[in-house]
Amino acid sequence: MDFELSEKGQDFYNRVCQFMKDEIEPIEADYFRELHSLDNPWVVLPVIEELKAKAKAQGLWNMFLPKSDLGAGLSNADYAVIAEQTGRSFIAPEIFNCNAPDTGNMEVLYYYGSEEQQERWLKPLLAGEIRSAFCMTEPDVASSDATNMEATATIEGDEVVLNGRKWWSTGIGHPNCQVLIFMGLTDPDANRHQRHSMVVVPKDTPGVKVERMLKVFGDEDAPHGHGEVSFDNVRLPKSAIIKAPGAGFEIAQGRLGPGRVHHCMRAIGAAERALEKMIRRANSREAFGKPLSKLGGNPDIIARARMNIEQARLLTLKTAWLLDTKGVGGALSEVSQIKAVVPEMLCTIVDQAIQMHGGGGVSDDHELAAMYGAARSLRLADGPDEVHRAMVARLELAKYR
Amino acid sequence: MDFELSEKGQDFYNRVCQFMKDEIEPIEADYFRELHSLDNPWVVLPVIEELKAKAKAQGLWNMFLPKSDLGAGLSNADYAVIAEQTGRSFIAPEIFNCNAPDTGNMEVLYYYGSEEQQERWLKPLLAGEIRSAFCMTEPDVASSDATNMEATATIEGDEVVLNGRKWWSTGIGHPNCQVLIFMGLTDPDANRHQRHSMVVVPKDTPGVKVERMLKVFGDEDAPHGHGEVSFDNVRLPKSAIIKAPGAGFEIAQGRLGPGRVHHCMRAIGAAERALEKMIRRANSREAFGKPLSKLGGNPDIIARARMNIEQARLLTLKTAWLLDTKGVGGALSEVSQIKAVVPEMLCTIVDQAIQMHGGGGVSDDHELAAMYGAARSLRLADGPDEVHRAMVARLELAKYR
Amino acid sequence: MDFELSEKGQDFYNRVCQFMKDEIEPIEADYFRELHSLDNPWVVLPVIEELKAKAKAQGLWNMFLPKSDLGAGLSNADYAVIAEQTGRSFIAPEIFNCNAPDTGNMEVLYYYGSEEQQERWLKPLLAGEIRSAFCMTEPDVASSDATNMEATATIEGDEVVLNGRKWWSTGIGHPNCQVLIFMGLTDPDANRHQRHSMVVVPKDTPGVKVERMLKVFGDEDAPHGHGEVSFDNVRLPKSAIIKAPGAGFEIAQGRLGPGRVHHCMRAIGAAERALEKMIRRANSREAFGKPLSKLGGNPDIIARARMNIEQARLLTLKTAWLLDTKGVGGALSEVSQIKAVVPEMLCTIVDQAIQMHGGGGVSDDHELAAMYGAARSLRLADGPDEVHRAMVARLELAKYR
Amino acid sequence: MDFELSEKGQDFYNRVCQFMKDEIEPIEADYFRELHSLDNPWVVLPVIEELKAKAKAQGLWNMFLPKSDLGAGLSNADYAVIAEQTGRSFIAPEIFNCNAPDTGNMEVLYYYGSEEQQERWLKPLLAGEIRSAFCMTEPDVASSDATNMEATATIEGDEVVLNGRKWWSTGIGHPNCQVLIFMGLTDPDANRHQRHSMVVVPKDTPGVKVERMLKVFGDEDAPHGHGEVSFDNVRLPKSAIIKAPGAGFEIAQGRLGPGRVHHCMRAIGAAERALEKMIRRANSREAFGKPLSKLGGNPDIIARARMNIEQARLLTLKTAWLLDTKGVGGALSEVSQIKAVVPEMLCTIVDQAIQMHGGGGVSDDHELAAMYGAARSLRLADGPDEVHRAMVARLELAKYR
Repeated sequence: MDFELSEKGQDFYNRVCQFMKDEIEPIEADYFRELHSLDNPWVVLPVIEELKAKAKAQGLWNMFLPKSDLGAGLSNADYAVIAEQTGRSFIAPEIFNCNAPDTGNMEVLYYYGSEEQQERWLKPLLAGEIRSAFCMTEPDVASSDATNMEATATIEGDEVVLNGRKWWSTGIGHPNCQVLIFMGLTDPDANRHQRHSMVVVPKDTPGVKVERMLKVFGDEDAPHGHGEVSFDNVRLPKSAIIKAPGAGFEIAQGRLGPGRVHHCMRAIGAAERALEKMIRRANSREAFGKPLSKLGGNPDIIARARMNIEQARLLTLKTAWLLDTKGVGGALSEVSQIKAVVPEMLCTIVDQAIQMHGGGGVSDDHELAAMYGAARSLRLADGPDEVHRAMVARLELAKYR
Repeated sequence: MDFELSEKGQDFYNRVCQFMKDEIEPIEADYFRELHSLDNPWVVLPVIEELKAKAKAQGLWNMFLPKSDLGAGLSNADYAVIAEQTGRSFIAPEIFNCNAPDTGNMEVLYYYGSEEQQERWLKPLLAGEIRSAFCMTEPDVASSDATNMEATATIEGDEVVLNGRKWWSTGIGHPNCQVLIFMGLTDPDANRHQRHSMVVVPKDTPGVKVERMLKVFGDEDAPHGHGEVSFDNVRLPKSAIIKAPGAGFEIAQGRLGPGRVHHCMRAIGAAERALEKMIRRANSREAFGKPLSKLGGNPDIIARARMNIEQARLLTLKTAWLLDTKGVGGALSEVSQIKAVVPEMLCTIVDQAIQMHGGGGVSDDHELAAMYGAARSLRLADGPDEVHRAMVARLELAKYR
Repeated sequence: MDFELSEKGQDFYNRVCQFMKDEIEPIEADYFRELHSLDNPWVVLPVIEELKAKAKAQGLWNMFLPKSDLGAGLSNADYAVIAEQTGRSFIAPEIFNCNAPDTGNMEVLYYYGSEEQQERWLKPLLAGEIRSAFCMTEPDVASSDATNMEATATIEGDEVVLNGRKWWSTGIGHPNCQVLIFMGLTDPDANRHQRHSMVVVPKDTPGVKVERMLKVFGDEDAPHGHGEVSFDNVRLPKSAIIKAPGAGFEIAQGRLGPGRVHHCMRAIGAAERALEKMIRRANSREAFGKPLSKLGGNPDIIARARMNIEQARLLTLKTAWLLDTKGVGGALSEVSQIKAVVPEMLCTIVDQAIQMHGGGGVSDDHELAAMYGAARSLRLADGPDEVHRAMVARLELAKYR
Repeated sequence: MDFELSEKGQDFYNRVCQFMKDEIEPIEADYFRELHSLDNPWVVLPVIEELKAKAKAQGLWNMFLPKSDLGAGLSNADYAVIAEQTGRSFIAPEIFNCNAPDTGNMEVLYYYGSEEQQERWLKPLLAGEIRSAFCMTEPDVASSDATNMEATATIEGDEVVLNGRKWWSTGIGHPNCQVLIFMGLTDPDANRHQRHSMVVVPKDTPGVKVERMLKVFGDEDAPHGHGEVSFDNVRLPKSAIIKAPGAGFEIAQGRLGPGRVHHCMRAIGAAERALEKMIRRANSREAFGKPLSKLGGNPDIIARARMNIEQARLLTLKTAWLLDTKGVGGALSEVSQIKAVVPEMLCTIVDQAIQMHGGGGVSDDHELAAMYGAARSLRLADGPDEVHRAMVARLELAKYR
């Protein structure tokens, strides 16, 4: 048993931490102040491109691609702790070109994309020149059960025709977003998991329309945002289909494991940041003649936060290690477990950090309300907690049947 | 033992319910759509004044003033269930002239105000012509311990001079807000609870400045809002002091009990509305071939919501009855209990309603994210949960000492 | 609204409290010491009969029978707070002839028994001369779903023949237990709720055999105990059937509401006693230079206990009042709510009292471990929490369908 | 990062699992049936000695001693998963000579004992010929704060004289128990952590008296048991002191880390067993026409149990690894974390397993009530949860001060 990083992983980790401390932390507050002062916040401020260039120059770039020559060549386990660090900041993931949903989209194109798709879309994504969105969830059906999906990707001759409505297409508001990956029903008569296809859709294709940007607890999350998108007879050549018609679920499955580890590790980084804020506040704020840290149940809250973060991190690291050593099939339960455990844990800790900050906690003075919105939506994004727990239970029950 | 309303209370209750159903519910969505479409949402839309006039004409007006000839003359217990109904809507309280913080301010002026103060401010408040704010909490100190308060109300000759910074002054953004009640330190050498004074401050007095409007989970809550307000050598005649210098805590104490009952009963109404939304969603949305209401732990969640609402309501009603029959002194523990119990209960239920609505729950499609913001801030407004539980514990521990 | 007892109820309540304080509390510890020192604890110690006689002489007897001339003639609501007092002690209910399952059995015989059944069994039960058991739950099927019941009460000519195995027949170990009420399947082809009959069975009828006494967390609860009982071709005249063949469910339904109120109110009394123990310990025990009451989350625990007891009590009192004013049909949800809420609340508080007592808490030095066993089994007796919450949910869901 | 056992650890682990399955599981129920049928259960049944001999012959013996030539030479991390296996059974630890408190006592004697002490006591303990107890906790003071300790170990000339009262001396009822390790105050004027001494006390020394055996939730846990022991002028030569006068805390500190890992890993094994029972029951028992596994929140309960066990196990394994690689000083927070996390987790899961078993769950039919008693006392043994969380909080707060 060994809980340490590989030598290479440790080196990247150290450099990412240093970069966060030297380059990102000092400018973050100013960045958001400037962004929020704009009439149109759907822009990339220059500082972002500057930092991207710096990170790229230092090789702190595309670190998420496991063991690939295109990225840093890190294992999932080694990358995990880096993702945790980037999760401490709302802007860090983009600066390292490690932000969702581009990471998942790049993985899809890397593992399943045609040469043409890779040339046209993967290359500029890896270069950080463009961004992308993922169009899967639909407003009119419970997406927790993906077979409900009603949008269609119909084959007509040499073309594939897309129709339907998607929402929570994160990143679609970003000015650099140029491509979407769309999932839709192709063959309703095929086997349950061979009915859907994934299609690469240039954002400017006729028939693609961003109907509105959704708010999360009152915040549009510019400049990336979350769009509701209609597809009205969107026609593309069949070559826009990824891998093959009906391969949608297979691809989604492969995209899943690492993506959840990334999400969860970033969430753990956010939890650490919330805990840090909570502790700093508890140490510095006084009431009834004592620092909050000595009042009532506050030490208990801090201790439980620490214990829950530690446990959630270890579970996520083990999941990453299972993906590295046994593949997705060897981590089925764990991938669901972390998705059920981590966002709930994060919500609780951010909520407690809010409470420790008093009235200021619900305002935008301490970044905590925004963190809460992001944390809370994680309990729904990529399937609600309930679906993941149901999966864990199913696998447990099968052990003794 | 009798859990029914008085005949008079029942009559008012029935008429309020009918008014809510006939007049308020049908226009609420349109009202917010119009408001949110405005560049400047700090306005009173005409529909509000129309409905206020209708409610006033029907005598559904100022129902909060217990047993007073100025209002409906209801007991706290009878009014409580009416407050619950108005809590189902963000706009109903204003329409019945029963909205915070005006209710508390009117009570203060009614019980402690001079004739002059009553003539100048209470009358137009009772008429719904103007609105008011309450300036107590401060950004720089833990207001959970009110003796921390740093703002001053210094007597200089015939004048009282106000200095300091207050925040979470709710209602101060409202275009009709014309008067503030300010609390500040007058005599640091007096007994601990005789140091502070309450002062009536016309909003346009020189030196009063709204520094900014605070957001609650990203929402400014226009048109009433929550302001951060600076007081810079604000000079007023001594007659602006309510009751007497040093009477601030005594007045605050009297204002407390009924105000908390109102807040809590409105919160219970909100919880009922969230539960209704949760159930409607559970009955109508399907996943995995079943309505959500039949899936997993959802029935348990609904049952627990019902049981927790029922219990919290009964505790609040009993508190109202204690205020009616024994006064504030006979309900010390209960007034703290409801403040600790109800907002926490509401947060949990709104959160579960969000979860039941999937991704839409965190957006502004179902009103739930806004309800959450309001609910969450209730756990801090008027003292954090922790302070109320500490009070309850102190009274318990004293029983066996 | 009125949260006070009736004058008559208040008088009985005061006298019961006084009796508890003067007669029962002083002898309780000695009683258990003597009982536990016996080789055969399945006996009635003389002190019990002495106190029964005293209570009877003071009219503090059979107070559970609502508005009946046979008892004190109290409403359910007035009796509820008396039941709460008796719940503070393991022996008090018997002394007032208000102990389960005799109370429920007496109600059954009072409302549904034939004259003969009343003469032979109800009279001596009301006089406290004999005791009884109730044989419903079965070891081999989930009794949460009563239609699962496998024991039979078959009509053969003029006789009814009982076969099957029952367990958790509380009270069957008591030396005075002379009669059982047995529930079994009579007509499998009848409507779902008209298949079962209740039968009065003299304990010494051939074929009735107590197979063993069950332990609850290691304790046999002598002298009443909980038996597993086999019925092997037990033959009785048809007149032993209560009301009529097939009336079992109807009778069970009527027995239900008040019984649950009694159980829950006694549980609330136990919770008050546990809270009292917790507070006395917190006030008196020191660690790290302070009383436990000032350490960490302990005040929070005490405050939450108080708030949860208050709420549970009010819900139970309201249920009693509904039974008094609207009957069982008007309290369907509430009867299930209290059964789900109160035992869970009690378990939590007893558990926290244990924790506050340190190692001694799990021993038998503070009565808390025994209280925990009793509390924990309440979450299963008369249906597990889950079944009651499911009922509450079903009624909620039906409101908006 | 590597979550696998060492080759040697894996080999031992496999053999322990096989031994459990082949030798222990098949005889366990019979063992307890026989034991419980005895008038005097304070005996070693022959099967225990037989199995001890078998285990010893296979080298599955003293596996707890880290990296020692006296045991199996396993690391803490490798032994941890073995401890987990043994925790599935109440008798397995003794059979492998890995049961508390002997393990801790052997460690103390191994690291700090004099040659004489090792010869006389360590040897037969390692051989499994005798057993031992640890006398630290006292009934009259809060042992959570060890400096409260009132028992004394006073040096008088060449002797050390012991006085005081200890309880929860686990193992003292065992017929083979021949030696106690006693901790007491030697020099009240020394530095806070140099006041106490540990002394080796032959159980038959004059003045040592087992006053009574304590029950845990009604169970005396024969044949080892938990004693309350008085020491009345117990005189021993100074050579009975371990290491040196005043070294008590230093030794206790060293004993702590591995002991907590062992306790916690056994608790995790018990949790796995409870979960297995819960799942088997959920799969096999039907109500309302479905297996319990498909009813309501049951799958959620099972999923949460799995997720909480996994996380607790990983935290404990990491703690073991820290002890192996950084020593006790490198695992200060983690050692407290696991002690706070694991017993609480175990209690919850056993409680839920009880609920899933219905009435039978609280009886002694399914071993769950006894498991609960053991689990519950773990939340107090070796310091209550609160003390461990306070330690974790203290270390967290110090990070940002």
